[in-house]
Amino acid sequence: MAKDPTTTKKNAKKHEENIGITVKKSEDVAEWYQQVCLRGELAEYAPVKGCMIIKPNGYAIWEGIQKFFDAIIKQHKVKNVYFPLFIPESFFKKEAQHAQGFSPEVAWIANKEDEYDKERLAIRPTSETIMYDAFSRWIRSWRDLPVKINQWCNVVRWETEATKLFLRSREFLWQEGHCAYETKEEAEEETLAYLQEYKRVCEELLAFPVIAGRKTDKEKFAGAVYTTTVEALMPDGKALQCGTSHLLSQGFAKSFGISFLGRNEQQQMPWQISWGISTRLIGATVLMHSDDSGLILPPRVAPVKAMIVPIIFEESKKAVVERCYDVADVLKNAGINVEVDAREEYSSGWKYNQYEMLGVPLRIEIGPKDLEKDQVVLVRRDTRKKDFVKVKDLKESVEKTLEQMHHDLFSKAKKFLDENVVSVKKFDELVKAVEEKKLAKALWCGATECEEKIKDKTAGVNARVLPFEDNKSKPHGECVLCGKDAMNVVVFGRSY
Amino acid sequence: MAKDPTTTKKNAKKHEENIGITVKKSEDVAEWYQQVCLRGELAEYAPVKGCMIIKPNGYAIWEGIQKFFDAIIKQHKVKNVYFPLFIPESFFKKEAQHAQGFSPEVAWIANKEDEYDKERLAIRPTSETIMYDAFSRWIRSWRDLPVKINQWCNVVRWETEATKLFLRSREFLWQEGHCAYETKEEAEEETLAYLQEYKRVCEELLAFPVIAGRKTDKEKFAGAVYTTTVEALMPDGKALQCGTSHLLSQGFAKSFGISFLGRNEQQQMPWQISWGISTRLIGATVLMHSDDSGLILPPRVAPVKAMIVPIIFEESKKAVVERCYDVADVLKNAGINVEVDAREEYSSGWKYNQYEMLGVPLRIEIGPKDLEKDQVVLVRRDTRKKDFVKVKDLKESVEKTLEQMHHDLFSKAKKFLDENVVSVKKFDELVKAVEEKKLAKALWCGATECEEKIKDKTAGVNARVLPFEDNKSKPHGECVLCGKDAMNVVVFGRSY
Repeated sequence: MAKDPTTTKKNAKKHEENIGITVKKSEDVAEWYQQVCLRGELAEYAPVKGCMIIKPNGYAIWEGIQKFFDAIIKQHKVKNVYFPLFIPESFFKKEAQHAQGFSPEVAWIANKEDEYDKERLAIRPTSETIMYDAFSRWIRSWRDLPVKINQWCNVVRWETEATKLFLRSREFLWQEGHCAYETKEEAEEETLAYLQEYKRVCEELLAFPVIAGRKTDKEKFAGAVYTTTVEALMPDGKALQCGTSHLLSQGFAKSFGISFLGRNEQQQMPWQISWGISTRLIGATVLMHSDDSGLILPPRVAPVKAMIVPIIFEESKKAVVERCYDVADVLKNAGINVEVDAREEYSSGWKYNQYEMLGVPLRIEIGPKDLEKDQVVLVRRDTRKKDFVKVKDLKESVEKTLEQMHHDLFSKAKKFLDENVVSVKKFDELVKAVEEKKLAKALWCGATECEEKIKDKTAGVNARVLPFEDNKSKPHGECVLCGKDAMNVVVFGRSY
Repeated sequence: MAKDPTTTKKNAKKHEENIGITVKKSEDVAEWYQQVCLRGELAEYAPVKGCMIIKPNGYAIWEGIQKFFDAIIKQHKVKNVYFPLFIPESFFKKEAQHAQGFSPEVAWIANKEDEYDKERLAIRPTSETIMYDAFSRWIRSWRDLPVKINQWCNVVRWETEATKLFLRSREFLWQEGHCAYETKEEAEEETLAYLQEYKRVCEELLAFPVIAGRKTDKEKFAGAVYTTTVEALMPDGKALQCGTSHLLSQGFAKSFGISFLGRNEQQQMPWQISWGISTRLIGATVLMHSDDSGLILPPRVAPVKAMIVPIIFEESKKAVVERCYDVADVLKNAGINVEVDAREEYSSGWKYNQYEMLGVPLRIEIGPKDLEKDQVVLVRRDTRKKDFVKVKDLKESVEKTLEQMHHDLFSKAKKFLDENVVSVKKFDELVKAVEEKKLAKALWCGATECEEKIKDKTAGVNARVLPFEDNKSKPHGECVLCGKDAMNVVVFGRSY
């Protein structure tokens, strides 16, 4: 007799262990997000407060981001390096703004001070200082420029607010690029070039749109002349900074004594920039696309593109499972990474739920009837749309469906962003927009005082970005708060 | 008039800046090694004592090792993860031997104890404890096994001896693999499997042979039942541990409360192993192959396989440089990474010296006469052998020469190893062999006391490895020190 394991008692029990997400995204994003991360097996809280363990499913996304972005920076002739985790305290003191910005978050190592004339060692929160000390030795002549280096590493910032997996933790993984150029023009051009590449990571790999622009002086990187940013809007109406690129100009060069003999035979200082993205992008991706059944991974970054699940009946089991592995081989040979789950101790229903929770973009179901018809059932994770596909057309169909899914996820996120950035003229409109979980695009006089007042009056609404496309020229109109002549168009919002 | 830049005053001056290695490998290996690393631009000493800065040339080798080995472990179904840098002190205390072995080298973070009920946080020297705490949550049933994870990360061990670039530093990069299995047999099998893969890294990628075997109890990893190792012999007669794999057995499982419901419905403990290689392998590679002109990189790990240098005369400059880029395109399209150095401010002679110092495996010289004859001059870094190769045959010739170079480097290193491991029967022979900068293969009774006495009497000669191939059965003979019945064949030597 045909036995569908989903109906057996043993498997019904197993089925119960397959706990779903217990809150809706629309009701409690924070709790929903945590459950999606935990049950999607991306990460978990570490026994060390404020830290996280990145599990295989989560780390594979980071590997995807690394692979994509590392290839890009190598095209830009950036070389990877590794600098020490430890930074002498005196280095931080050299650039005053930088020191002031980072000191509250720095962790220090203990009991080793004596060896360093009582100098403490910081655990790197970022590597400008230790790298630029090296730059002062490396850069002698214009022939040594540009210097373009990057490192993929861990950094530590002793956050005091509650940890959020990927979004805020005391240690995280990132890349930090550091470049020095002969001219200001090159430095400014490249500040934008790497920001543009971050936009590509978000849009072309992770399938969500971002607003590119500048930060206000208040929000810029400690030690930068200006910071450019790509900001995304999360489903709860909060903005998330997804990548930043800083024009450091010559401030660090001055502090660290970096100079070179120019083409004009004059001693001069290089122009510097730095730029970074982090494991925070994993959090953004999860927040943006996932649903009440769990994780939805955008196909291009998903390590496993499709999970093949046999529908097992005793008499056709052997042939069906064989077909699953044959299909897997065909797809793997075409460079599409797929897996087969032919375990008999779990029902196919349990597996469907499980791989939805884990965010695998496609499911391929194969049962005895499909075998007869030389077809498979192809199910998209995001829409759950089912297609019956002939085995001979499968490779093409999988490729097409994955690409379509990428574009659909992006379009959906783009529509959400477009609908939730609203232009406001008056302060009360700004407040209302943010209350409605939107971003408010407003005119601003350029005074930090107004920016701070807005933040105070709203308990946290801040200037996220001065979008490039809205600030090509000085706007006409009045500051949303003080009514004075406006200098910039700013997107205000709450943020992570 | 034709102008060879090597003869101009400006370039003669440049030429002087191209400082060579000032000591011979045969005369002072330590100083020679340091110069090769520094002038080969692999790494430099950091301003933080005991730490190093890995520069682009050095990091590219690490990327080569990562790429090679990461593909291997993924075939073994190992998944990459990331665990926190910080480990609570109480975790170390759980496994007594482990704690004892690592505590002298642990660095702690300062001023954050209060938050942890006065518990200190260690900066990871290795991650067994924090990972196995997670294993105790992850492993419930035999269905959860095996667990096979790995992380590529930095570790800190507060060494008190003098730093040697790559070979000994307070922070280094490594991978640490950690697996848990249902049975002891699997665990033992896999301990050997990963060691075998380390042998492949050394031999197939880095072109030097190793002796695979077990460590003595005295030299094993703190917390392991036994440690297996691959040991290489360096040109100064010292052994270098290149990779280790540990059978941890059930000790950590017991300490961390890791257990699972077995197939027999009984609660039981998993069998664990861990395994690691580090940036030390870069040091081994440098020491092994390089010569008095600088670095020699084995071709398979060299990031740039060939440097193309135009011989520039004013009237043929354009055509020669064009040909260089054409040749580069042909090779790049064949997947061979090459570069062109067409800078006119440096002479070709200066460039030859420079790329020899940087260890680029092949040099391709192209001058006006070569252009006429549709040929290039192909020069091997190791032998300096010159070949005239027709442009149409270049791709094939480069591929063949690179492979030949790999095999020749390996053969040379293998011959050196074979000639410098000598079998000894008496203690004075052992002393003499080590004085002659060889490794001494001797019989040993198995008593730690004898091992320690040998170390004391020789000021540091230690048991490096019990080679598998010599220890397939109990040897016949007497311990090299005490004369009692021998249990093992041991390779003794000085070590890094």
